[in-house]
Amino acid sequence: MRHGGDLAAAEAAFGQPRHGWLDLSTGVNPHAYPLPPFAPEALTRLPDPADVAELCGIARAAYGWKPDTPVVAGPGAQAMIQLLPYLRVRGPVLIIGRTYAEHAYVWARAGHQVREAWSLSHADSAQVVVVVNPDNPTGRTTEPDVLARLAEDLARRDGLLVVDESFADVSPELAMAERVVPRGMVVLRSFGKFYGLAGLRLGFAAGDEEMVSELAGELGPWPISGPALAAGKLALPDEAWAATTRLRLTVDAMRLDRILTSAGFNQVRGCDLFRTARHSRASDVHRRLARDGVWCRVFDDRPDQLRFGLPGDDEGFARLEAALKSAVKTAA
Amino acid sequence: MRHGGDLAAAEAAFGQPRHGWLDLSTGVNPHAYPLPPFAPEALTRLPDPADVAELCGIARAAYGWKPDTPVVAGPGAQAMIQLLPYLRVRGPVLIIGRTYAEHAYVWARAGHQVREAWSLSHADSAQVVVVVNPDNPTGRTTEPDVLARLAEDLARRDGLLVVDESFADVSPELAMAERVVPRGMVVLRSFGKFYGLAGLRLGFAAGDEEMVSELAGELGPWPISGPALAAGKLALPDEAWAATTRLRLTVDAMRLDRILTSAGFNQVRGCDLFRTARHSRASDVHRRLARDGVWCRVFDDRPDQLRFGLPGDDEGFARLEAALKSAVKTAA
Repeated sequence: MRHGGDLAAAEAAFGQPRHGWLDLSTGVNPHAYPLPPFAPEALTRLPDPADVAELCGIARAAYGWKPDTPVVAGPGAQAMIQLLPYLRVRGPVLIIGRTYAEHAYVWARAGHQVREAWSLSHADSAQVVVVVNPDNPTGRTTEPDVLARLAEDLARRDGLLVVDESFADVSPELAMAERVVPRGMVVLRSFGKFYGLAGLRLGFAAGDEEMVSELAGELGPWPISGPALAAGKLALPDEAWAATTRLRLTVDAMRLDRILTSAGFNQVRGCDLFRTARHSRASDVHRRLARDGVWCRVFDDRPDQLRFGLPGDDEGFARLEAALKSAVKTAA
Repeated sequence: MRHGGDLAAAEAAFGQPRHGWLDLSTGVNPHAYPLPPFAPEALTRLPDPADVAELCGIARAAYGWKPDTPVVAGPGAQAMIQLLPYLRVRGPVLIIGRTYAEHAYVWARAGHQVREAWSLSHADSAQVVVVVNPDNPTGRTTEPDVLARLAEDLARRDGLLVVDESFADVSPELAMAERVVPRGMVVLRSFGKFYGLAGLRLGFAAGDEEMVSELAGELGPWPISGPALAAGKLALPDEAWAATTRLRLTVDAMRLDRILTSAGFNQVRGCDLFRTARHSRASDVHRRLARDGVWCRVFDDRPDQLRFGLPGDDEGFARLEAALKSAVKTAA
């Protein structure tokens, strides 16, 4: 399966760019949370379960979950996605899409019957429903109240609602937060995207007590690394950084909008960590950008769309703008 | 389940020691491989799959596996242990024990029929056999040739032999290495123990092509962190460090033997990363050591035994010796 951040594959296909890569192929915040060097113990010692439990408490506060919400930490939201199909829930799986392709893939791989639909109106016939909110790559949003009601319904039928909030840090009004229902729902959060520390592999799952406990069992002892533990403990309580960063990303995403629209893209959607947009010659534009060292995300199922992460500085924006201008002209 | 390295639990039970903890409760090398600070990209970027593949090649060379041996990296040998029960193999599971308790636990948890036996002589009736070599905590060793023959037999029956070589770095003569059979065997390696970097969560699985491929599928994209990737790439090729470290650990383990024997322990077994030994008042000795700030490993199923990791310096050895002397005297 194709994913962003695959610069080695980009280089194999398009060669090494003269000015290095401007990697816009992921939705990772280019302004990483500033970390001091790790204490030696973060590398040498097994992460103490008590410290990981403390981190889960910090996550609870940061994400606005009630104090008694069951939470488990794992090596990335993706690691949680991998484990969800092994929870003790059976029956048809409905993925609300088009969305992040790993969801459908892992459930099908584990032998579940999987269907993708654009609307929640067929949720009645599913035992598991997966919603990415806000969605990647479409940017589509779903009201938390709708999700809460759906979770209640699924809980009555011993079903499961998975709400993947990997990009919800930039849309806090969408997050389940206080609304998290006690049963039937598992909410996923990604630490690496908003905090710009995707290399550390840290994510959380919260919600249904039995299911979160099962996930903890699947993850086993020492599910996260010492560096991830240290970074999460520092970054998650820093509300001022989060507020400033949200503002900055909103401004930068609007700047990206203007550049994309000027270059002839339309249907510009997304969230403040990426934009997905349509262009009549998208595949051509992607290839030409790649030859210029600008790497964005293409989609096998939607060759008319490209997804762009945010450049990290003025130089990056200027480079993208110039490369797009040239790519669109030659592709026309 | 009880594990080593649980200093928070130790502190909850015995209070904060006056001179801090001397943690000997794990089998992690106290002389960590020296690492430079991580490049920012190791924290900020998603680890590129091509870089992880390169690390697997480095592991292949370091562990002496043939160039075409399938290898997958994961966040610790424990993470691999967690996934083994989900491989497409069915039938009775035989754990050669007494051994690391997680093996029996995860297979039973996933619904398999699990039996523990001291001898391989009942392997005929099992479809999955798990051997830890050298064993933790008993130090028992199994000849690689015996394991190779067993794997061949299991492969003929579509079974699986799991060889957990988490402590084999200090007993390279036991490692499957060149002998790895093409089918029916999965070998696990732990990076963190020998390289003293348990906080980074890095381990490898190698062997049977189909099973290693299934493990890779279970782990998904980005299975290891950027820091783990960077550390593995630096440390694994360093043969000089490994050779010096093996020698140092052998000397230190013999020093530990003398201290344990002098304190009245007998049946001192283990490998060069830990020693397990018998004492008629082991539980008492453990408690008294804990009150003195020396934390070793107890076993619920063998209250007559304690396991000790290696102190990292002369001061640590002296402290252990003094604390043991006093503990044994008051426990007597």
